[in-house]
Amino acid sequence: MAERIRVAVVGGGAAGMSAASRVKRLLGDRAEVVVFEKGGWVSFALCGTPYYIGCEVKTLDDLVHYPLSEFVEKRGIDVRLFTEVVDVEADVRRLRWRRRGGEEGVYEYDYLVLATGAVPKVPGPWRELLGYENFFVLRSLDDADRIRGYLVRDSVRTVAIIGAGYIGYEVGEAVRRLGRRAVIVEMMPSVLPAVLDPDMAEEAAKPLLENGVELKLGTAVKEFEAEGGKVRRAVLSNGESVEADAFIVAIGVAPNRFLAEKAGLKIGSTGAVWTDERMRTSRPEIYAVGDVAETRDLVTGKPVWVPLAPAANKMGFVAGTNIAGGEAFFPGVVRTSVTGAFGTVVAATGLSMAQAEREGFRPVAAKLTARTRAAYVPDSGWVTLKVVADEETGRLLGAQAVGDETAFWRINVVAALLMKQGTVWDLFSVDLGYMPKVAPVWDPLVIAARLLMRRLGTRPKK
Amino acid sequence: MAERIRVAVVGGGAAGMSAASRVKRLLGDRAEVVVFEKGGWVSFALCGTPYYIGCEVKTLDDLVHYPLSEFVEKRGIDVRLFTEVVDVEADVRRLRWRRRGGEEGVYEYDYLVLATGAVPKVPGPWRELLGYENFFVLRSLDDADRIRGYLVRDSVRTVAIIGAGYIGYEVGEAVRRLGRRAVIVEMMPSVLPAVLDPDMAEEAAKPLLENGVELKLGTAVKEFEAEGGKVRRAVLSNGESVEADAFIVAIGVAPNRFLAEKAGLKIGSTGAVWTDERMRTSRPEIYAVGDVAETRDLVTGKPVWVPLAPAANKMGFVAGTNIAGGEAFFPGVVRTSVTGAFGTVVAATGLSMAQAEREGFRPVAAKLTARTRAAYVPDSGWVTLKVVADEETGRLLGAQAVGDETAFWRINVVAALLMKQGTVWDLFSVDLGYMPKVAPVWDPLVIAARLLMRRLGTRPKK
Repeated sequence: MAERIRVAVVGGGAAGMSAASRVKRLLGDRAEVVVFEKGGWVSFALCGTPYYIGCEVKTLDDLVHYPLSEFVEKRGIDVRLFTEVVDVEADVRRLRWRRRGGEEGVYEYDYLVLATGAVPKVPGPWRELLGYENFFVLRSLDDADRIRGYLVRDSVRTVAIIGAGYIGYEVGEAVRRLGRRAVIVEMMPSVLPAVLDPDMAEEAAKPLLENGVELKLGTAVKEFEAEGGKVRRAVLSNGESVEADAFIVAIGVAPNRFLAEKAGLKIGSTGAVWTDERMRTSRPEIYAVGDVAETRDLVTGKPVWVPLAPAANKMGFVAGTNIAGGEAFFPGVVRTSVTGAFGTVVAATGLSMAQAEREGFRPVAAKLTARTRAAYVPDSGWVTLKVVADEETGRLLGAQAVGDETAFWRINVVAALLMKQGTVWDLFSVDLGYMPKVAPVWDPLVIAARLLMRRLGTRPKK
Repeated sequence: MAERIRVAVVGGGAAGMSAASRVKRLLGDRAEVVVFEKGGWVSFALCGTPYYIGCEVKTLDDLVHYPLSEFVEKRGIDVRLFTEVVDVEADVRRLRWRRRGGEEGVYEYDYLVLATGAVPKVPGPWRELLGYENFFVLRSLDDADRIRGYLVRDSVRTVAIIGAGYIGYEVGEAVRRLGRRAVIVEMMPSVLPAVLDPDMAEEAAKPLLENGVELKLGTAVKEFEAEGGKVRRAVLSNGESVEADAFIVAIGVAPNRFLAEKAGLKIGSTGAVWTDERMRTSRPEIYAVGDVAETRDLVTGKPVWVPLAPAANKMGFVAGTNIAGGEAFFPGVVRTSVTGAFGTVVAATGLSMAQAEREGFRPVAAKLTARTRAAYVPDSGWVTLKVVADEETGRLLGAQAVGDETAFWRINVVAALLMKQGTVWDLFSVDLGYMPKVAPVWDPLVIAARLLMRRLGTRPKK
């Protein structure tokens, strides 16, 4: 009979709780699983925070996938809230924790799961501004609560959002939903620059502009000016300045690898914690999952860091399975992502043209705007779709779509093909269903394949 | 300089017009392309006829993808309406046509494209009933017009539909939309028996039942009784009888291979015209495309006959490319199909459990009902999803889904994986995007993969 194993999980987000749940499911009483969470929530949905800010979701409770009791009572996990892990002594398999209020202790583990997530990037000089009541980042439910609480004040007229990534994009909508003026400042010349080529970014900017979100693109914040206990304005590199009643900084996140460094773990080329396909770090008894962990890009074959929730959940499942003595693998991602505002959905997978060029491919692209259902269906929507492929081999490299909700699903179909090294000719042949109410008979994906075949030929390359 | 080639296309539906258009696009004046269509429409959308019957689509013109002028004037195709091809003399590459009104002639071709479609199955004794004004099949726009014209008469209270395949399913909704009583009689014990396992068929039957469509399952029509110039009732094998004011027979279709037989072409094991991946028949100068042609099932590797529009269009494109001197391939299908009624979408791909067993696999299935978006999104829908895999290899074999529109797209994702011989572990890993408004973080597809891994293990089989 095996001894009871002791599993410590640091971080109660999706990845951590997924790992913890999996170990308990497989081992039951044969494992003690302790989750250390420095905040007051577990299994929370950061992705839903913009809806909370915009009052589409009324309460923070709604953003919690499962109540604490589900984990503690049903699954038998020892969840320690408001408890930060402050050190890891990997050689003796021991961590040191500190509870809010000052209590401290150590925990000796057989396995450690680092699910410490990511932290918002805030350039050094801006950090002290986080002490002002009207200067925010959005990386926790508590942040979301503070932001909404502030934005609904009568005195708030204008909200400046720094960064036009997913969070900036979605918070832009949320701010408008609250009836406030929204100004987004983005250093790059287009919105969602990490995933969209500039031409597709123009499509993605439309719903923002049409709904009164102001965009200041291609200009960075040089400095913020505070006055009377509040930040008052952002001075931009182009000489303009943006006066606002609240500021939300959303310029990206970085893996929270403080403990990984304490434990002496290998850091990957992306800056996140190196892992193998079992989600093991360079120490076999320590796993890293979720936004702190590096994985592989199945298009390039190279390490990649994509801090998104579905991968985090799967990584947790895989780590938990392996810790419990099973064998499970997380092969990697193809960078699929989706965002949206005002009813427009923006999705992407694989590489953009710009990324494909940087990776040494010879990318070609097909782009089209098409109806998403048969023309005679009354409420047919539209999608603008761009598919990128390698001219030499015909391999699909990526796709971007902006339009109605089907944009998301068309990207998912490409993602499935990317995972299986699909080609342009596969995209032509893929057997998509057809009913006039849900799709046109020549799907935009298949039309994109036809356009690409004009460049690559209709005969598949070997 | 090559001589001008002469291409005859028989049938002006999707497949025929697609082939004709492709030849003209690639060769322009170097090809003469003549389309012989025995009816009065080309490029018509049979799939939309139930919407026309139910008055969701107002006019027949709406169901025509392109007007005739598009083909004749823009694309330079010689379209001969109301002109039936009555014979093919393959050895001398000549066909004989007859125009409505009696004019006859011959046409000598270099290439012949058979796009003669499918004809509704009507058992011998019922054929003479087609002469009655209230007894219908639905296989042309004109049929749809006659049916609607009859069903909107004041005297029509009850409509009996024979067959609960796609057409019966969709016409059931259409009849209810016209405010008529609808009774569907299906010989098999469940609806959509060709694509759904009985448990999923029960889900698919719900929207019909909830909207007042009456189902008589597991009982066949023994005979129809006519009286006073109209068919009055269907006598069923279970002893019941169904009295109705109109009858629509929709028990399936068969490839219209009359001309293929005249030409002495090889008929495949499915009963449709044998073709290779270039859509050539057993005679290299004759191509068969669309509902008359057999293709390959990429899951079983065997011949299959799936008369659906997307494949028909692609087959036409491929045939046209090859006739024009290019090289293009249609590798086959995975049987993806979709239907729906009253807002519920029913989609399937690959093999059902029953089909997989018949094909000699060792199928296992996972089934679940889940929300289609994050739980806290106000208008989240539901989907019941069943995924079938081979226990021995872990290969995905098929999937069925009933629910909101995302049911269709989840099936498309499985279809993409089926084409690439994807496994249960691929389905777990597939990098689907996530945003609370469009999907839950654990997609039902991924949960299905987890359920299947309980049977097959988390470690991929070699």
